[in-house]
Amino acid sequence: MFAIIGGSGYVGTAFQKLMSRDQQPFYVVSRENVDYFDKNALAAKLREVGATFVINAAGFTGRPNVDACELRKPECLAGNALLPGVIREVCEDLKLPWGHVSSGCIYTGTTSDGAGFTELDAPNFSFRQNNCSYYSGCKALGEEMLVGAEQCYVWRLRIPFDEHDSPRNYITKMMRYDRLLQATNSLSQLDEFVASCVACWTKRVDFGIYNLTNPGHVTTSDVVEMIGKFGLCKKQFSFFETEAEFMQLAASTPRSNCVLDSSKAIAAGLPLSPIGEALERAMKNWIPAASVS
Amino acid sequence: MFAIIGGSGYVGTAFQKLMSRDQQPFYVVSRENVDYFDKNALAAKLREVGATFVINAAGFTGRPNVDACELRKPECLAGNALLPGVIREVCEDLKLPWGHVSSGCIYTGTTSDGAGFTELDAPNFSFRQNNCSYYSGCKALGEEMLVGAEQCYVWRLRIPFDEHDSPRNYITKMMRYDRLLQATNSLSQLDEFVASCVACWTKRVDFGIYNLTNPGHVTTSDVVEMIGKFGLCKKQFSFFETEAEFMQLAASTPRSNCVLDSSKAIAAGLPLSPIGEALERAMKNWIPAASVS
Repeated sequence: MFAIIGGSGYVGTAFQKLMSRDQQPFYVVSRENVDYFDKNALAAKLREVGATFVINAAGFTGRPNVDACELRKPECLAGNALLPGVIREVCEDLKLPWGHVSSGCIYTGTTSDGAGFTELDAPNFSFRQNNCSYYSGCKALGEEMLVGAEQCYVWRLRIPFDEHDSPRNYITKMMRYDRLLQATNSLSQLDEFVASCVACWTKRVDFGIYNLTNPGHVTTSDVVEMIGKFGLCKKQFSFFETEAEFMQLAASTPRSNCVLDSSKAIAAGLPLSPIGEALERAMKNWIPAASVS
Repeated sequence: MFAIIGGSGYVGTAFQKLMSRDQQPFYVVSRENVDYFDKNALAAKLREVGATFVINAAGFTGRPNVDACELRKPECLAGNALLPGVIREVCEDLKLPWGHVSSGCIYTGTTSDGAGFTELDAPNFSFRQNNCSYYSGCKALGEEMLVGAEQCYVWRLRIPFDEHDSPRNYITKMMRYDRLLQATNSLSQLDEFVASCVACWTKRVDFGIYNLTNPGHVTTSDVVEMIGKFGLCKKQFSFFETEAEFMQLAASTPRSNCVLDSSKAIAAGLPLSPIGEALERAMKNWIPAASVS
């Protein structure tokens, strides 16, 4: 029995969809049915529902974007930095294996030789470097909570997308912003991400950190060209001249743009297709929001 | 009516003692009577008791010392970084003035010209510098929560002491450690600290940050000499050769040793006596733990 904490969010819903499809029993732990910041209450709920594996898909993300976290610091800190520590203590007390949905946004750029960051590279976009958004700082503190954790996976998601037009989908975001920032990023196809998380446990992959991004990386221009090629929208995209202009005109806090190396996940047999293929598939099968009934 | 959050701790108890002496009505908000991390519950309690000024004296400190915080990260983060943010939101919603007991441990050393840090100097011992203990990092995040807060005092306490022999008292700590680290510090006489906090509000001092340390600074040797001079104990004190030796043999996380400038507090008329006088008075009136009945 999987228990999904924060199961009704964007990522949690994708876990639910996968488990429903696979007829895998699961229980959604939400703020409505338990105060999961309370160790005793969370432990009692996990025991009550007979959880054998716990997924933490809860987290506080800013709406419409990361700038909003600067104005909601208590929720951001509690949801992203504190909660993983609380869940760790509960899972270790109950001797339950578990996984935490973390984020690749604790990195910026590439390694000094232009490669993607591996799980052995320390985050370089966190409070420790004093160069980050409040959101990224909190996500990095969340990972620090899990150093030395027992029976624990840390799954790094990075800019999720799929074929469903939605305000949380990277492809939708690209189409809706007035102007775009040119950048190079690794991305995570959402269904492959959650399937990889679940496969970690079902295949008994070694516990630890996994960069669950689709192999490779893309530039903003690459994505915009594909959007045009697949006819998702006819708009002429315009770009900020520089990151400085973007920061001045459109953003109140620095963005993480980074390349992650997912070869550890691939070597473990996790189902992540090359980023170009994954993006093409999402755009070929694109379901505009208006046509969702 | 003062509401003291965390009123049963070391600092909270000193507030209670002062208010009892002054026949000032107060209400102690403790974990037993309300989950003060829950905004709605805290707001309801403050309304119910008719609070007109709120004091946050809650915080998580390691026992016997700051090393313990490295092993209790969720509690340390929640108590020191998250809670000030929650209380801020509640007090701003209720339009209540309030004060937060912060710490001088978010600094290390002196300014580049050897002076004490003023309230205008940014913390230099925090996650932002990546040089600190988890405790100091959390206390600094707690102050960040209060940037721009309305009707809010931030009161920085630094190594409290008084005349009562107790494991939390700096003088007691000096006598009980096997070996000491030579360092220069500003300190806070606990009764003067709480009297200064309360005076901020009763005298309607401007809201903002105040370094509430006794003017001046002392070295560990200064304190040890006074302990000998006043006959508090007869032990021969020994010192670590270097901070490196101290870190290797006795500590698992870096300590803050620092000098603060309290001239803003003095100019505001807050009752802080020179550090030498305050230490002498505590030692002259020393009440050994064994004789407390």
